[in-house]
Amino acid sequence: MNTKSILLKSRPQGMPTEENFESREERLPPLEEGQVLLKALYISVDPYMRGRMSEGESYVAPYNLNEPIAGGVVAEVVESRHERYSKGAVVLGNLPWQTYSISNGKGLSQLDPHLAPLSYHLGILGMPGLTAYCGLLYIGQPKEGETVVVSGAAGAVGTVVGQIAKLKGCRVVGIAGSDEKIDYLLNDLGFDEGINYKTTQNMREAIAAACPNGVDIYFDNVGGEISDAVYARLNKFARIAICGQIAHYNATSRPTGPRVEPILLTKSALMKGFIVGDYAAHFGEAAQELAAWVKAGKLQYEEHVVEGFDNLPQAFFGLFKGENTGKLFVKVAEYGQ
Amino acid sequence: MNTKSILLKSRPQGMPTEENFESREERLPPLEEGQVLLKALYISVDPYMRGRMSEGESYVAPYNLNEPIAGGVVAEVVESRHERYSKGAVVLGNLPWQTYSISNGKGLSQLDPHLAPLSYHLGILGMPGLTAYCGLLYIGQPKEGETVVVSGAAGAVGTVVGQIAKLKGCRVVGIAGSDEKIDYLLNDLGFDEGINYKTTQNMREAIAAACPNGVDIYFDNVGGEISDAVYARLNKFARIAICGQIAHYNATSRPTGPRVEPILLTKSALMKGFIVGDYAAHFGEAAQELAAWVKAGKLQYEEHVVEGFDNLPQAFFGLFKGENTGKLFVKVAEYGQ
Repeated sequence: MNTKSILLKSRPQGMPTEENFESREERLPPLEEGQVLLKALYISVDPYMRGRMSEGESYVAPYNLNEPIAGGVVAEVVESRHERYSKGAVVLGNLPWQTYSISNGKGLSQLDPHLAPLSYHLGILGMPGLTAYCGLLYIGQPKEGETVVVSGAAGAVGTVVGQIAKLKGCRVVGIAGSDEKIDYLLNDLGFDEGINYKTTQNMREAIAAACPNGVDIYFDNVGGEISDAVYARLNKFARIAICGQIAHYNATSRPTGPRVEPILLTKSALMKGFIVGDYAAHFGEAAQELAAWVKAGKLQYEEHVVEGFDNLPQAFFGLFKGENTGKLFVKVAEYGQ
Repeated sequence: MNTKSILLKSRPQGMPTEENFESREERLPPLEEGQVLLKALYISVDPYMRGRMSEGESYVAPYNLNEPIAGGVVAEVVESRHERYSKGAVVLGNLPWQTYSISNGKGLSQLDPHLAPLSYHLGILGMPGLTAYCGLLYIGQPKEGETVVVSGAAGAVGTVVGQIAKLKGCRVVGIAGSDEKIDYLLNDLGFDEGINYKTTQNMREAIAAACPNGVDIYFDNVGGEISDAVYARLNKFARIAICGQIAHYNATSRPTGPRVEPILLTKSALMKGFIVGDYAAHFGEAAQELAAWVKAGKLQYEEHVVEGFDNLPQAFFGLFKGENTGKLFVKVAEYGQ
């Protein structure tokens, strides 16, 4: 069996480019006992991957050079010498960017292909959905009537954060980078206010106008100057969940800005960074509640599909250009075909 | 009865100077029904007062111009037309910088002059002690074997933080501004390590050396570059209690520096600002436990006394020059004389 792979050829300095990636085709060895042959169906493309492309300590280990990028993948078992997985099973795993790959089954979780579209397991029922759920509920602790601001609001995490906050009775303000995204937040997802940071002259005034009662919870996916503007409106005892800092992922030196500590002090505010894995103990209940909300039509979920394995690098670049609305992934193949 | 007062004449730009204060002598009116005449015994001098000298929003209202500075004062009732306070009683209150003042009794709490030296109620059993106790235990949540770093370690709050952390079985590293202070922390208070930030060339290296297992809790009284150095050594799930930001209190514009959010994200760390009043519900238990520790000799407590009402401004300036070890206050008069 031949497979195509996309490898990390060099570590990006600042914004990643085509030159940092390399495409390769190789022949996979025959399966050994205890292994499965997996065919990639849906490959997730996420901002956190930028961090892993750099050297140095982060919350996940860096990718090795000349090895495939890896991340969340929904795959079909096309051949099995593993007792737990039979041909035709669908699994979610942290897998290489390859059209086909061999796994010993470790870390794979089997999916029910009838529960929801299979790609949902990369999004609303997977990492982004769980991230939104755990960060908002365990750090933000929203109470009815509070004001929640979400940056990166039209992304895979932000859309879920805002909707859960609405379900909890909060006023929800989303910040995103295009009028189309803002329309989507307001008209499809029920956000109360939206701010297009690209066309807004004065973010502080815009946030003040959108949050007449101040900001109780800030769910931050971006960092940088957008956050500075939100901080200026924090209420006493505000909670800030630091989920992503996409504004800085391509920074080549440590970003600077106004210090936040004096504000946290003045407002007795809490700021906490997290990754979804910190809340692994809650995944069971979280996924159940998320699935129930989706089923009941209380949680809208949108996907941004890029077709074709070869377009993985381009899809990844798009993350940093603010091109996608909803969960971004690449469709490699159809299940069962 | 004549009283001397110290008033805020102008708002300091940057570091406060003599010119910002004015001394005045005036005659107090006779007591009305429901009032007490108070004679100041001990007047507290605290960094947070600098914030109140500026205009604009902070966690406490700014002082008015041409009115006396006010703060924690232990005072003796020398005349009373109030049913709850008799002549000779000793009270703690938020009172003006005056040798004598008139109060309607609101907000005063009566002290037991036999429990501990009266000035202790400005310190270990008052605001600084409760601040240390609540910030360390409720935000820091120290666990045995963890490493706790305290900045402003030789101050009224820092000395208590470090000692409580030791009582909880932690490794304690204090940062302070003179070798005398460091000696005091190590030899009198039992800190494990001390760093004199004024003579240390490379704070990051010094913290790395003092914290071989990283930093689990950072109790921050100062902010600025000292904090940046500590952040570089934070462990996963670290907790940072923002208690003071003395490095910035005299700043004339919003201070800038390396952004902390990316570190909080990478380390799943928590940062929380607070003022002692946030934990008012816990004051009872806190004061009881503090008093018991002091009585048992488990908690050392040092005071820095400046003699004479007229020296209040000088004592205040000293706060920003790193001159004091322990709780700073001005002794105005002796009880019962």
